[in-house]
Order: sequence, then structure tokens, then C-alpha cells
Amino acid sequence: MKVDGKHYRSIWAASDGVSVEIIDQTKLPHDFVVRRLSNLAEAAHAIKSMQVRGAPLIGATAAYGVALAMRADPSDASLAQAYDMLLATRPTAVNLRWALDAMRQRLKKLSPASRPDVAWRRAAEISDEDVEINRAIGENGLAVIRSLAAGSAGSRLNILTHCNAGWLATVDWGTALAPIYMAHDAGIPLHVWVDETRPRNQGASLTAWELGRHGVPHTIIVDNAGGHLMQHGRVDMCIVGTDRVTAQGDVCNKIGTYLKALAASANNVPFYVALPSPTIDWTIADGVRDIPIEERDATEVTRMAGRAADGRVVEVEITAPGSAAANFAFDVTPAPLVTGLITERGVAAASREGLLQLFPERQAAATGE
Amino acid sequence: MKVDGKHYRSIWAASDGVSVEIIDQTKLPHDFVVRRLSNLAEAAHAIKSMQVRGAPLIGATAAYGVALAMRADPSDASLAQAYDMLLATRPTAVNLRWALDAMRQRLKKLSPASRPDVAWRRAAEISDEDVEINRAIGENGLAVIRSLAAGSAGSRLNILTHCNAGWLATVDWGTALAPIYMAHDAGIPLHVWVDETRPRNQGASLTAWELGRHGVPHTIIVDNAGGHLMQHGRVDMCIVGTDRVTAQGDVCNKIGTYLKALAASANNVPFYVALPSPTIDWTIADGVRDIPIEERDATEVTRMAGRAADGRVVEVEITAPGSAAANFAFDVTPAPLVTGLITERGVAAASREGLLQLFPERQAAATGE
Repeated sequence: MKVDGKHYRSIWAASDGVSVEIIDQTKLPHDFVVRRLSNLAEAAHAIKSMQVRGAPLIGATAAYGVALAMRADPSDASLAQAYDMLLATRPTAVNLRWALDAMRQRLKKLSPASRPDVAWRRAAEISDEDVEINRAIGENGLAVIRSLAAGSAGSRLNILTHCNAGWLATVDWGTALAPIYMAHDAGIPLHVWVDETRPRNQGASLTAWELGRHGVPHTIIVDNAGGHLMQHGRVDMCIVGTDRVTAQGDVCNKIGTYLKALAASANNVPFYVALPSPTIDWTIADGVRDIPIEERDATEVTRMAGRAADGRVVEVEITAPGSAAANFAFDVTPAPLVTGLITERGVAAASREGLLQLFPERQAAATGE
Repeated sequence: MKVDGKHYRSIWAASDGVSVEIIDQTKLPHDFVVRRLSNLAEAAHAIKSMQVRGAPLIGATAAYGVALAMRADPSDASLAQAYDMLLATRPTAVNLRWALDAMRQRLKKLSPASRPDVAWRRAAEISDEDVEINRAIGENGLAVIRSLAAGSAGSRLNILTHCNAGWLATVDWGTALAPIYMAHDAGIPLHVWVDETRPRNQGASLTAWELGRHGVPHTIIVDNAGGHLMQHGRVDMCIVGTDRVTAQGDVCNKIGTYLKALAASANNVPFYVALPSPTIDWTIADGVRDIPIEERDATEVTRMAGRAADGRVVEVEITAPGSAAANFAFDVTPAPLVTGLITERGVAAASREGLLQLFPERQAAATGE
């Protein structure tokens, strides 16, 4: 999407033809820093240090990391080393493993001499495929927004989102934000309520930055505010992303999503979840029971980084000294609270039946359970 | 309550007999600073700068402010000036006006010579009355906790609270926290989930500090986490305070309370609100429709204060530069989501009938509507 008028992806081949460039997301929203990745070590560092984050972007960066390794040394040993080094950067990222497997699959039977060019092309393909999936999610979500806008008699549509499921988390477009960008670009008047998203503040830093740079009207609110806004008719629709959707349509997403879904349900606000179809975990049905919720370091709750008056970005302690804190990273929104799942294939009802209607090839597996 | 073993109120007569002392709450949770208020100007400053906050404590401080003014000059002009100066410190605080009216009422017909001692005694009475009300709220809430604990087979009771309705907001005990302190002191094993309470973080700073200093087990969580905890049976009860309760039992409280009440209702967790009866606004029924919600300065959302690594307390910008923020201070929890209203008179159902049963003297007014 655009940064002050110029189009960017979150990762792209550099003009030198032998390296890639990324936006250092650890510097956002305070500074816009582009970093060049010229070798495997730099690519691995970018993932590990969260200069890049978001499952699809991690996958694309890992693919380019393999390509950079092949440029330096296309041997079998180098391929194996690149695979292992990149996989270790974020051990639980499913897309990371998927991208690395895709690269290895394509390269392993080739002669070393042909690997560098093929690796580069495959990494570019992986990026382009992600853009295409998100574009399709955007188109399908745009249709939902159009129909809501048609019922709102020309008044501005207010959309609430939680966390960052924008282009910074993918290669371009994003998932939850793709429909919003398309609707905005299509001239549908809209405004986004951006949940701050404690404790890591991805909403107030990344989502607000994205929307602001692209020119989408938006307002940051604390995570506590969405219920009040929905109660007073000031939210027409919610769209969020997700880390995992179960076969019955339960949605695992950033902590706090469930509270917004409860408020949406209580106030008849449509609540949509946008996702690429590989996010669906067909092996699990009951998300509340069966999805383990990661507990992260409590310092994400007790400390916060920001820009001080002297311009430096500093980290401060914000909680009572000596008090313990707990940091649950995700929660699960039960399917009955979800109005629809927006995928690259279309919009599914959040239920086993709805998902199987959109993904009939899963029918055999489902009935075989 | 106790601060590391020593009993404190939030305001008390100093040992010199002619001044009062307070805990400077703007320094919490990072520093425990006691300030002496020796004259009217210092009392007014303490309220205006929020060294003291919380409706009952503001009232008590204002009462002592009048007493300090009478010590310096017991004339009619001095009384009028003290009234006006203190009232202007926090124009919307109902308790402030109530305390000032109570002081003026008692003093205005007295001779100037007798005013200083009477003023001092009346200010002390106002403080003691607040402690007594909160003690009664605590006793009534303790009975609720006892009955829940009886059903929990000796396992630790988990109580979630939002914002700060503790002894720091009153003269002692607090409202929502009074039952918790009493239950803890009575040996009932319990643990408190403390909502951070963005944007002003009264939970993570004041409530956590209070509970920690008194020795009550507690854990700070972000405001996003409560739904997940309730969904997994890790909350046995919620207790919050309130700024205004309507005649039908709707509850206006710190922004985010409504989201927790929705989650409590969805997961069959009892949701209690603790309040002194003057908090009931008998003139309003529908809180969602008729209680105006204050919008405060957006900088409370975009900035946060904390202690930097070098020990200094600094304020940092935490949101994307150029992005607007909105800051809704309160929300309204509809009565059907509230299990009970814990008052100094007893526990009422959150309904017109429930409230009138506890406050039958209001029956005439209610039927006369």
C-alpha cells in the first residue's frame, strides 16, 4: 500500500538485483527505516529481531533468505544450513516452515549452478502469491463493505479493527485491512476505529501508521472503548484477522478480540474475520477447548516503549513495582459470535457447514472423522 | 489499609494538630510520598493537581481545606472564598460540592471565633463517615464472597476488578476493594486479577499498589485479557466501583467495565458493583440513553508515563505520529448484566424493584413520577 503517496510492499527485491529490502518494523511508528538484507544472516536476524513480523511476511522473508544463501553458496550443505538457521528464528511460525519447505522442495533436485536463479524466482513467486491471496480477500471483503455502505445512505461507514492484520503483516494489502483499503480507494466514505491492542500496541503503532500513511481516516481508541462505541451505534462493522480458525469456525486471534465480538453480538454489529484459507486448522473443532493459548513475557505488560520529549525512544516501567503480571497472547472467539469468514475464495459462514460449502474438497476428510 | 504493615488512611490529621497529611497519588506507584497540607491553597492544589482523587477523598480533602481556611481567618469572607476556591478545583465532582455545602451549613451561623474548632471536627466527621460507609459496604460484600468461597471447596477465589475503587479513592477501605480486604484479612484464600485500565492505568498503578502493600495476592493483566480468563473458568467473581447508578440499576463506570460485564454474563461469572448509596441517581432510569459520557484529552491515550532505566519518571508518546485518538472516559453497563449492587445498607438486585426494596423511602418519589 502507499506510504505518503509512494507504493510499498513490506519486502521487495532491491534495485541492485542481488539483495532485498524491508521496512524495519521495530522502528515504527516513530521512524520509517528501510533495511537492506544482503545475506542469510541478515535475513535470519530480520525475522528473529521482529524487524519483519506477521506470518505471511515471515514466510516471504525466509524464502528470500534461502535465495540469498544460494547466491553465496548453492551447495546442498548451504541449503540445509539456510533451512535450519531460518527455521530456528521463530520456531512456532507455521508459515515460516511452509515457505522453507516450498523452497527446499523446489531446489533440492536441481544442480547447484541453477539454484540461485530458481531460488530468487521462487521467493518472488511466494511473495506474489501472498499479494494475490490478500487481493482476493480484499475483493471479497469489499463486497461486504459495499452492501453495508448501500444500507447506510451515504453516511460514513465506521469499521472497528483490533491488532494489526494489515499490509505490514503480509507482503501487501493485509487480511483484515485489505477490504478497508479497497473500499477507501473505491471512494466509499469510511473511518476506522483502531484498537490500541495492549500489550504490544500493534493497533496504535502499526495499524494507525499504515492507515495514516495511506490516507485512510482513522482514530485510535483504547481497547476498553469499543463496547461503548458499539452500544451507541458508532460502529457499523468489525473486521479482524486471525492466527487460526477451527473446522467449526472458532477464531483464535489477538487477546481482546473475544470481548469485541461479545459487544458486537450484543449490539447487532456484524463481526467479520479475514483470513487466507491455510489459516483454517481442519484438525480442531472446539477452539476454546483445544487451542493452547501462549503466555508471553510479563514485561510486555509492565513496560512500554515510546518517544520521550528529547526525541529518544525509551522503555518505561508502567506498573506497580513488585506486582506480578500475566500476559495471555491470544483468545478464542466462538463461532456463533462471528458473522462471516472472509477468505480468498469467498465469504463463509463461521460453521462447519459454512466452511465445507466453500471448501468442498474437505468434505471427505470431515465425514471420515 | 496497610502500607507494608503500617495502617494508613488516604488523608489524616497531622501530629502538629493544625495541618493534614495526604499520600501524593501522582507519585504512585513509583514513589510513596506523604505531603502536608497546611493551608487552603495547598488543599486546593492537592485536589486540582490530583494528588488526591476519588470522589470521597476529594470531599474529605475539601472539608479539611475549609477547616484550614478557618484556622487562618474565620471570617464570613474567608468562608466564602474557601468555598469558591475549592469548588473550582474539580467542577464536576458531586462529592466535592456535597462536602463544601456540609461545611458551610455547619459553619455559617456560628461566630467566627468558634468556627476553627467546629470546622476541624466536622471535617474529621466527614472522613469518619466515609470510612464507616465503606466498612459497611465491605461487610456486605464479604458476605457475598463468603458464600462464593463456601462453594469453591477451599480453592483460592479469583476476583477480577477494573480501575481503582480502593482505599486510595476513599478515606479508607474503598468500595469495590473493601470486601476483598475484609475477605483477605478474614483468611479467605483469594487472588485478584487487576485490569490495567487504560488509558490512565489506575489498575496497574493504584489498585496493584494498594493490594501489594496490604499483602493481597494479585496479578496485573491488560484490559483485553478478562474475557479469555472468564471463558476458561479462571474468574469466580467480578467487583467494580461506579460513578453513577441509575434508578433502574444501570451502572456508569470507567470505560471498559461494560466489556467485562458482557464476558461475565456470557460465562456465568457473578458481576457485582460496590457503591455508597449517594451514588444512585434516582432521577435517571436509562443509563445508556441518558448518562452523558465525558470525552477527555486524547493525550491520555497517546502518551504514557513510567519509570525509565535511569530512574526518572518520564512521559513517552506511544502512538503513530499524526494519528488522532479519542478518549471516552466511562461506559454504561445495563442492569441485566449486573448480578448485584453492594451498598452500605445491603445488596440490592440491579433493578428498580431491587433498589426500592433496599431504599423504600424512595418509593413515594418513584410512584409519583
